[in-house]
Amino acid sequence: MTETLRAEDLAFLLHDVIGVSRFANHPLYAGQSREDWDAILDLAAGIAEREWEPLAARLDVDEPSFDGERVHIIPEAKAALEEYWKAGFQAAGFAPERGGMGLPFTITQGLAAFFNAANVSLTGYAMLSVGVGNMLVATASEAQIAEYLPPLIEGRWTGTMCLSEPQAGSGLADIRTRAEPQADGTYRVIGSKMWISGGEHELSENIVHMVLAKIPGGPPGVKGISMFIVPKFLKDGTRNDVRLIGLNHKMGFRGTTNCALNFGDEGGAVGYLVGEPHQGLSYMFHMMNEARIGVGLGAASIGYAGYLHALAYAKERRQGRAPDDKDPASPPVPIIEHADVKRMLLQMKSYVEGGLALVLYGASLVDEARLGDEEAELLLDLLTPIMKSWPSEYGLRANEIAIQVFGGYGYTRDYPVERLYRDNRLNHIHEGTRGIQGMDLLGRKVGQKGGAGMRRLAAEIEATAAEAASRPETAELAASLRAAAARAFGVTAAMQARAAEAGPAAYLANATIYLDMLGHVVVAWLWVRQALAAEAALGAGEGARRDFLAGKLTAARYFHRYELPAAMTAADLLERMDRTCLEAEAAGF
Amino acid sequence: MTETLRAEDLAFLLHDVIGVSRFANHPLYAGQSREDWDAILDLAAGIAEREWEPLAARLDVDEPSFDGERVHIIPEAKAALEEYWKAGFQAAGFAPERGGMGLPFTITQGLAAFFNAANVSLTGYAMLSVGVGNMLVATASEAQIAEYLPPLIEGRWTGTMCLSEPQAGSGLADIRTRAEPQADGTYRVIGSKMWISGGEHELSENIVHMVLAKIPGGPPGVKGISMFIVPKFLKDGTRNDVRLIGLNHKMGFRGTTNCALNFGDEGGAVGYLVGEPHQGLSYMFHMMNEARIGVGLGAASIGYAGYLHALAYAKERRQGRAPDDKDPASPPVPIIEHADVKRMLLQMKSYVEGGLALVLYGASLVDEARLGDEEAELLLDLLTPIMKSWPSEYGLRANEIAIQVFGGYGYTRDYPVERLYRDNRLNHIHEGTRGIQGMDLLGRKVGQKGGAGMRRLAAEIEATAAEAASRPETAELAASLRAAAARAFGVTAAMQARAAEAGPAAYLANATIYLDMLGHVVVAWLWVRQALAAEAALGAGEGARRDFLAGKLTAARYFHRYELPAAMTAADLLERMDRTCLEAEAAGF
Repeated sequence: MTETLRAEDLAFLLHDVIGVSRFANHPLYAGQSREDWDAILDLAAGIAEREWEPLAARLDVDEPSFDGERVHIIPEAKAALEEYWKAGFQAAGFAPERGGMGLPFTITQGLAAFFNAANVSLTGYAMLSVGVGNMLVATASEAQIAEYLPPLIEGRWTGTMCLSEPQAGSGLADIRTRAEPQADGTYRVIGSKMWISGGEHELSENIVHMVLAKIPGGPPGVKGISMFIVPKFLKDGTRNDVRLIGLNHKMGFRGTTNCALNFGDEGGAVGYLVGEPHQGLSYMFHMMNEARIGVGLGAASIGYAGYLHALAYAKERRQGRAPDDKDPASPPVPIIEHADVKRMLLQMKSYVEGGLALVLYGASLVDEARLGDEEAELLLDLLTPIMKSWPSEYGLRANEIAIQVFGGYGYTRDYPVERLYRDNRLNHIHEGTRGIQGMDLLGRKVGQKGGAGMRRLAAEIEATAAEAASRPETAELAASLRAAAARAFGVTAAMQARAAEAGPAAYLANATIYLDMLGHVVVAWLWVRQALAAEAALGAGEGARRDFLAGKLTAARYFHRYELPAAMTAADLLERMDRTCLEAEAAGF
Repeated sequence: MTETLRAEDLAFLLHDVIGVSRFANHPLYAGQSREDWDAILDLAAGIAEREWEPLAARLDVDEPSFDGERVHIIPEAKAALEEYWKAGFQAAGFAPERGGMGLPFTITQGLAAFFNAANVSLTGYAMLSVGVGNMLVATASEAQIAEYLPPLIEGRWTGTMCLSEPQAGSGLADIRTRAEPQADGTYRVIGSKMWISGGEHELSENIVHMVLAKIPGGPPGVKGISMFIVPKFLKDGTRNDVRLIGLNHKMGFRGTTNCALNFGDEGGAVGYLVGEPHQGLSYMFHMMNEARIGVGLGAASIGYAGYLHALAYAKERRQGRAPDDKDPASPPVPIIEHADVKRMLLQMKSYVEGGLALVLYGASLVDEARLGDEEAELLLDLLTPIMKSWPSEYGLRANEIAIQVFGGYGYTRDYPVERLYRDNRLNHIHEGTRGIQGMDLLGRKVGQKGGAGMRRLAAEIEATAAEAASRPETAELAASLRAAAARAFGVTAAMQARAAEAGPAAYLANATIYLDMLGHVVVAWLWVRQALAAEAALGAGEGARRDFLAGKLTAARYFHRYELPAAMTAADLLERMDRTCLEAEAAGF
């Protein structure tokens, strides 16, 4: 059994850092206790590591295939998903009155972390279906919910999001799929969709496609987009007019089918409008925000798995000697003793544990918002592009480094680290590319509601810094955090002050770099929170966790000393709204 | 025909920046002219792009396989290599009296850049054989040279380096392969070797293995290593006692077989000592330094191919609109018009053209050293770890970004960018890992001969800065370069001053970070040289190259404004000899 996500760390983040137990006191989660959550997290860890992880390599090597009629996936995949469905994980986050377990969102993300780390391809099917279910609850009619939600929650059916088209990936304004209204109130959907994860397979009895399409005569661009339910099989059991054109063959993430789908080759797929016409994009964003958190969680978890594999190897592999040991007859040391290997492990640890902390903290904001904290919702909106992108960048970097720790072995397909690296490369692309996230953060979220989210972030950071400043072990971290935060918020204010005069193109020209800079400040802050929590627990004399807690303090210091300064140099070019990229001429490349 | 390396850029680097034509005046290269070099570079570009590039994807998908008896490689691979051999490329760098063409090393690297960019797997076989040939010339007896060199130069035979063993990758002190002396003056070689590129195949009539082994009774550790020629087939045509145990199945670079070999399963492979006993490691470094330059060249070239693919796609793919265009009816723009795509392209361009400039400049030092410039040789020694590592880091990053420019398409195996990314991941591992390069640079090269190489580097940088400072277009670059160089050299001096007191473990603890920082300063310097050369050519009114030359200035500014500052933040932690990694406890991970 391979541990790909450390349960001890997850418990530390959920309880010592985020304090998730406070949610148990709220009526929304009435009757739940830490013991319940621990039990289900345990169960998830067991299924993930025993049933899911061993299939990850096989799903990569024997990837799904399409014979022109049917999609073939190794049968163990279906068995593993059924195990998951049977245990009720699909129901974890839905409200009890909808047939769910009503767990806090933060706990459901903890569950998902185990499954992502063990086998991101299988997780894909499950997460998309949860996302479709949540979108239906938020936007569909009670009749639609009654028809589609129960089988999605039970795992008998799965779901997809159909946004992109071959000619329009990030550019949703240009989608061409159309939905023609019928006399009976249904629509006929006609068009081509691309990059549809889980778009076809036989893992479930039915597939519920949530399709973006334009009703003829509606407004141009994104304002004319409506959302439709287009099931693979209609209620009477007949097959809807949705056809798999082909599977995309990817570098990684191979176990999740990724499809080019045609709707309406034989006249039109039957579709059911969700909510109001032309509101499709805002509906989709109910799912998209959740999907973006899910991507960040996946990226952090895949990185985490790479880190643990590299860590195990570094403890076991003996090679080389200390720089001051000149005796070739002395035994080689485990490579974890080499300073450069420790540097690589600290880099990975700070990325993957930092990324996981980021996503779980963000998930706790979902719960806070549910419990009525409006500011938490604004902060969640602000952090969502960071939650999606930061782990996609640094989780991938962790996977890259894991290969390095293994050396030549890591570059072979005999070890999992190269697969994890390939899997993680997707995460900057789907559910909004890195560039899209940057524009979302700087162009929308930073100034939303007069910058209320940023103010809440600043206040949270200062509260942490004040606490850290008061303790000798964390005073250095407090100073570093305050300096970085002051610089980041100062740069933001300076940019906003000049935005109108400079125009949107110049204001947004370095948005991706801004995304990365602010992300580093947020993760640096959460590392101080981890350090404070570790200090507190060490102070309480928790002997069994001593090494683990001391490691948290070391990783926090590493991140502040080795990683944060480089990210902050970007502040200069952001502040001056550097136009080098904006003004580069296409002919000069 | 796919252009994977831009001939115009190579000419600019060779002539405008490096001034390679000066070598034509030297007797060593008598009778050669720029026209000769241009002709052979043209020929290389043609064969690389017409014959080699189209096989790259197939060699990846249909990777070499071993049926227990023989290795199978797609037959087109042999045909493509024969085209290369027939055209005489293998002979390009050898002296005429040895049967070669006697081209300057810089030109041979220009040739190799085309082949690397087109098909790095095929290049592997050719480059290893050239390396073995050069090592024989430098270290073997005339009789050995007469026997082995001609078929290596003609391409009838190929060569390998057999250093690593399963239990000892980077730790050469611990190799166990032994060579037992025989009465006839030959040796019997017995042991297991790992990671042997080109270790078995039927692309050539014979394979010349250069094997590191220990003669029983010799000194322990690396001082007891000797070097042997162990041919696959002996002179009488019988097969030597060398057996392929298995092929390693890699993430990328799949067309070059990578082998676990057993020597002496049937009593001992016949080996011939090269040079003196126990001098094997220093002999191997004749080849290793060349191999390290070759790795850097390969990494820059693979990155370059990714950049050109992404560039072509960015010019052609239409999606989205400018941030200030709110009209959804306006046509989508080519994505190269988006500031963030230009940022990605500038990042790639600065990495791959900067990396290629680095390696070609380093190659010109090989020629300078041949012509008697001892300081150039010291500078070459100093830069070799940087030439190996910097392109391995940033060429890979360019390949990562190329996928991002393609979006979802880039993540599929229908486009070459994901393969190039997988190929390039190897380069930080083989021929000395990144960590090894850092220790070589900081532990050996920086202080070599009293720091003469560093002084020469400082003088070269200041000469460039002085020239750049005198021109308005490059004054900003001069200031940036001077500040970065002063900081890097200052930090180096500070570290050296404290090295004895701190001890080798602390001095070397952040060697990898030092490697990266100094690498950035060197590449920043070479970008200023490129900017100066572009300015000069623009001043000379070269209308046909105007866009290309202006693009060089933009890329130079991008690198100094966007990339150099972050690298320089490491100076602080280097200066204080930060011990966070060194002192991290293994139990805390």
